[in-house]
Amino acid sequence: MPRISVPVPMRWADLDAYGHVNNAAMLTLLEEARIATFWATGDDRESAATKVLAGGAGASSYTLVARQEIEYLAPLEYRQEPVQVELWIGRIGGASLEVCYEVHGPGGQVCARAATSIVMVDAASGRPRRLTDDERGALEPLLEEPIEFRRRG
Amino acid sequence: MPRISVPVPMRWADLDAYGHVNNAAMLTLLEEARIATFWATGDDRESAATKVLAGGAGASSYTLVARQEIEYLAPLEYRQEPVQVELWIGRIGGASLEVCYEVHGPGGQVCARAATSIVMVDAASGRPRRLTDDERGALEPLLEEPIEFRRRG
Amino acid sequence: MPRISVPVPMRWADLDAYGHVNNAAMLTLLEEARIATFWATGDDRESAATKVLAGGAGASSYTLVARQEIEYLAPLEYRQEPVQVELWIGRIGGASLEVCYEVHGPGGQVCARAATSIVMVDAASGRPRRLTDDERGALEPLLEEPIEFRRRG
Amino acid sequence: MPRISVPVPMRWADLDAYGHVNNAAMLTLLEEARIATFWATGDDRESAATKVLAGGAGASSYTLVARQEIEYLAPLEYRQEPVQVELWIGRIGGASLEVCYEVHGPGGQVCARAATSIVMVDAASGRPRRLTDDERGALEPLLEEPIEFRRRG
Repeated sequence: MPRISVPVPMRWADLDAYGHVNNAAMLTLLEEARIATFWATGDDRESAATKVLAGGAGASSYTLVARQEIEYLAPLEYRQEPVQVELWIGRIGGASLEVCYEVHGPGGQVCARAATSIVMVDAASGRPRRLTDDERGALEPLLEEPIEFRRRG
Repeated sequence: MPRISVPVPMRWADLDAYGHVNNAAMLTLLEEARIATFWATGDDRESAATKVLAGGAGASSYTLVARQEIEYLAPLEYRQEPVQVELWIGRIGGASLEVCYEVHGPGGQVCARAATSIVMVDAASGRPRRLTDDERGALEPLLEEPIEFRRRG
Repeated sequence: MPRISVPVPMRWADLDAYGHVNNAAMLTLLEEARIATFWATGDDRESAATKVLAGGAGASSYTLVARQEIEYLAPLEYRQEPVQVELWIGRIGGASLEVCYEVHGPGGQVCARAATSIVMVDAASGRPRRLTDDERGALEPLLEEPIEFRRRG
Repeated sequence: MPRISVPVPMRWADLDAYGHVNNAAMLTLLEEARIATFWATGDDRESAATKVLAGGAGASSYTLVARQEIEYLAPLEYRQEPVQVELWIGRIGGASLEVCYEVHGPGGQVCARAATSIVMVDAASGRPRRLTDDERGALEPLLEEPIEFRRRG
């Protein structure tokens, strides 16, 4: 199973007045899972095979979020334990890829399923650029079926 | 044309280090457009025909976000002028509805297109409840074609 | 009375699980009051006498927050009406100034009193720079007694 | 030395367009340090001696933030490594206490110094209540000199 499991800490301020993680804050949790998996930043560059999508100040490329889709399946309450975000690649395109996620709450239940389309951008020109062979090579082991969203109109 | 145009103020803190409104913050802008259109809250209850979806503390019903889909078409930079969110209803179901949006940036360009599925919940039982005839009557004048998302896998 | 009254819209996501504006979110409301008063940005440059503290991308100077102090006097609940932030200048220094605020909730009660020390920074060098005579001239009409904080240890 | 060192993960969305952790977001980092140290919540109740300040839904008491003061000493850039927040108690009062912090950036430099006054509140009455002997006993080992803020007007 090519999924990666990423622990993502929640914050008290992610909750809204309903006492659950706010719908928009959930996307911030996904953003952190994505960065933890794919970005090599700062002094903490890691050698993980997946850390190939550049990010952070001074990188020659960066990623843009082009599209997101998310189903909220169960409310997520605050815990000091991180949520577990299962993450995989649902599609690899010419200059883009789709990252898929399942957010698992404290009891293991799936609180959300989501997908993010991201585009590789050349920092100098500000334009999309093709994924390199190295990037493809690093991403392909994570390739799995994309999410079938059940609640589309 | 049944769309409502809702001015939604941006915040400096909505920007991330790329200098654009962050992908998750964009959903917070949509949330504010939705609340301004559909919620009657506090002392500022308005008599707008659309203010029929209860919200806020003490209401007998509330709304849950079940699903969201968004395409980011152009980066949105900070302005002190509000963005204009065009909002309409794309679908009315038994206990749910789909709110559609186009976010227009300062020059009028469409920065994002999005849809949110929301479910009516009975506050006492915590379970979905059917839309009332009054709610349907208020929502139907806003009914228009749902968004055709172009970037789905 | 040299105070300026700035309407600042709240957001539903400013609330935390206690149903009140979160302590950190209150500082975001102050930031928006500050920007509305002092920054001339984008196409919406205004000719207000106070719009003298540069900000936004491409400006030759920017402001840094060096210090903040805030007393929370009453919980602030969500309203669709903006809060009114009364704002004045408590001190003008060589390269810095202190902005003072009172945040007035829906019923007019004071929910918070706060002060922010901001430093003028030259964008090219990244170093503090002296306030210009024009800046002083614009700020002085807003000068009033700084806040006496009552709850300091 | 009675200080506790709490690792607090940053988020990319904490950055603003200057590329540094936003001034208000810094207080959210402090909130997380406070919760990690003092709250016993959910299934993850820990037996740490300091986990005595109740929090979370259903607790018989909760804490309110009454006052905060913060000096920003150096900009904090995004890292995937947590910041280290050193935390101690600067004062124990009848129904309140002062939490003090130093935020250490990736290189170890102090990026901010801050203090938060928190008040114990009885959940049933909504009114302040005295610290119990157990609470005092747990907090006293963390008592140290409060921060001397250098930049007060």
